[in-house]
Amino acid sequence: MHISAIAGGVGGARFLRGLLAHLAASPDPDRRSARVTAVVNTGDDTTMHGLRITPDLDTVMYTLGGAVHEEQGWGRRDESRVVSSELAAYGTGPDWFTLGDRDLGTHVFRTQLLREGLPLSAVVERLCQRWLPGGVPAGGLPGGPTVRLLPMSDDDVETHVHLTDGRTVHFQEWWVRLRASVPATGFSQVGVDAASPAPGVLEALRDADAVLLPPSNPVVSIGTVLGVPGVREALRDGGAPVVGVSPILGGKAVRGMADACLSAIGAETSALGVAGLHADLLDTWLVDDDADGALHGTSVPGAAPGRGRVLARPLLMSSPQAAADLAGAALDAALATGRRPRRSAA
Amino acid sequence: MHISAIAGGVGGARFLRGLLAHLAASPDPDRRSARVTAVVNTGDDTTMHGLRITPDLDTVMYTLGGAVHEEQGWGRRDESRVVSSELAAYGTGPDWFTLGDRDLGTHVFRTQLLREGLPLSAVVERLCQRWLPGGVPAGGLPGGPTVRLLPMSDDDVETHVHLTDGRTVHFQEWWVRLRASVPATGFSQVGVDAASPAPGVLEALRDADAVLLPPSNPVVSIGTVLGVPGVREALRDGGAPVVGVSPILGGKAVRGMADACLSAIGAETSALGVAGLHADLLDTWLVDDDADGALHGTSVPGAAPGRGRVLARPLLMSSPQAAADLAGAALDAALATGRRPRRSAA
Repeated sequence: MHISAIAGGVGGARFLRGLLAHLAASPDPDRRSARVTAVVNTGDDTTMHGLRITPDLDTVMYTLGGAVHEEQGWGRRDESRVVSSELAAYGTGPDWFTLGDRDLGTHVFRTQLLREGLPLSAVVERLCQRWLPGGVPAGGLPGGPTVRLLPMSDDDVETHVHLTDGRTVHFQEWWVRLRASVPATGFSQVGVDAASPAPGVLEALRDADAVLLPPSNPVVSIGTVLGVPGVREALRDGGAPVVGVSPILGGKAVRGMADACLSAIGAETSALGVAGLHADLLDTWLVDDDADGALHGTSVPGAAPGRGRVLARPLLMSSPQAAADLAGAALDAALATGRRPRRSAA
Repeated sequence: MHISAIAGGVGGARFLRGLLAHLAASPDPDRRSARVTAVVNTGDDTTMHGLRITPDLDTVMYTLGGAVHEEQGWGRRDESRVVSSELAAYGTGPDWFTLGDRDLGTHVFRTQLLREGLPLSAVVERLCQRWLPGGVPAGGLPGGPTVRLLPMSDDDVETHVHLTDGRTVHFQEWWVRLRASVPATGFSQVGVDAASPAPGVLEALRDADAVLLPPSNPVVSIGTVLGVPGVREALRDGGAPVVGVSPILGGKAVRGMADACLSAIGAETSALGVAGLHADLLDTWLVDDDADGALHGTSVPGAAPGRGRVLARPLLMSSPQAAADLAGAALDAALATGRRPRRSAA
């Protein structure tokens, strides 16, 4: 069984960890030996102090590799900040972006490999040899489910944010420095139109038995990946059943500042508001059974005939087990739909 | 008063620290307000993990800035190695080159500035704003002596070592990894013929009231700087009195592996063997009064008429005070000679 997912940072990483835990514990041998491909957003990537930094890829890699700072959700456990205190002592900024020493080891190595000419996808593969040897996640066993991380593209794509005060800043500056306190009027995914999907991305999305959209930020994570030419078409026409998980529960973002992103693009901060962004893709949309249970059995407005059914499930990933149950429910929904005939892109 | 010096790593750094201490404590207002320019070897520079590393410049900078690891002689005090342990965990080498976290802060910032297009000399100036603000060394006072560090060149020069086993390796690999255990048959200063002296280097050497050659490695430190086109001529013909300090006492190198370097180029490991390498430059050559006292009052073989006198002084820099006394003795010898008429380069 081949399962593909599109992922942003913390939400996507925890969902994927839950998916792998679900698969590993499944009585179904097809699930237990499943291959998972995660197509990860790189629009948050940035360069700091000359080092190339890929926040979402690292969050997924550290989480699945068992090294993430659990409470924080991103970065490394047992982290120190000697190098960044030195950089601050030299009076060089930015001082609002945390660079832990352990994390810097990854950034230094990544930057070295990129400068040697390796494409990002090859760099990710090399880094994952440490964290996911043989594709086996932390705590996993040989013969169990494996996971492979793919950047959405080997080409640089940077999300810039247009602010109500007239400025345009890198996404990281808006998200980390300003904590989205200055309202955004829109986003530009600089470079996305010219970006090619990384090798294997389109195949993974077209040929999978299931494609899952975790509750990552629908605008600047999932939305950015969908903006890479060919990705949306691969999901819409590729034949794999697509199941999405709402990041909005009862009109509120569970984590992060998805509401600030949704209002910037004029979308409603609601489970159906988000579903509407993906209406052309979704076979099933999972909403929270507690907060949005009334939507159960309805359809996503704008969905293709026979697609876009709404199911209510417990969406809160309040524990690893809850995340595993959620991922299992999403997978169940996808497999219940099954593959459709693939449509020609023409 | 303007004093210039050529420096390598630990020996040069400790000599310069002694010189500044001597000047600061001098009853002579000209000495107390002297400007010191240190022209530092960059032939040991290398790139590790994509980061540009300048060992001699850093050793001088950290030593004069009061941050050096005193017992080790190089690197930072209170150092940790989180980043390099991460790099090792990724299986990327080299594992024989120590990169402390504090030190890495410097390397990351330097590499960033170089990639932004700054020449090395401007990068050194920027880094020294932290360690030597206003040119004042650690413990110094405004109005006291100041020091400025100049790389010998803004162009990359790399010392490669030809080994008896047929290999050619970077100097750092021979020095740090092999501890010079494989004999060398010679050195190549790759890039030196095309290198230009950094801005201010030739002026500092020509126009100084005294030029001092500390007991740095005569082949791969002093020798490399002298190999930059124009430097040797500036010392020989510029008019400043040149006083050198022997790094060899009684046929033995005080520190480092100068003997391995001298034998590689067919020079004798002796005070006069080293002096012979600089015979065309030296006004005065200081040898150790204990180990080589018999040479006192003789002349350096091959020196120009009226130049190259040998004086015996205590050369062991066994304490900061001993280093200050040695530097004072070298300065005394230079000022006693005074400037000569400058010779045309033609």
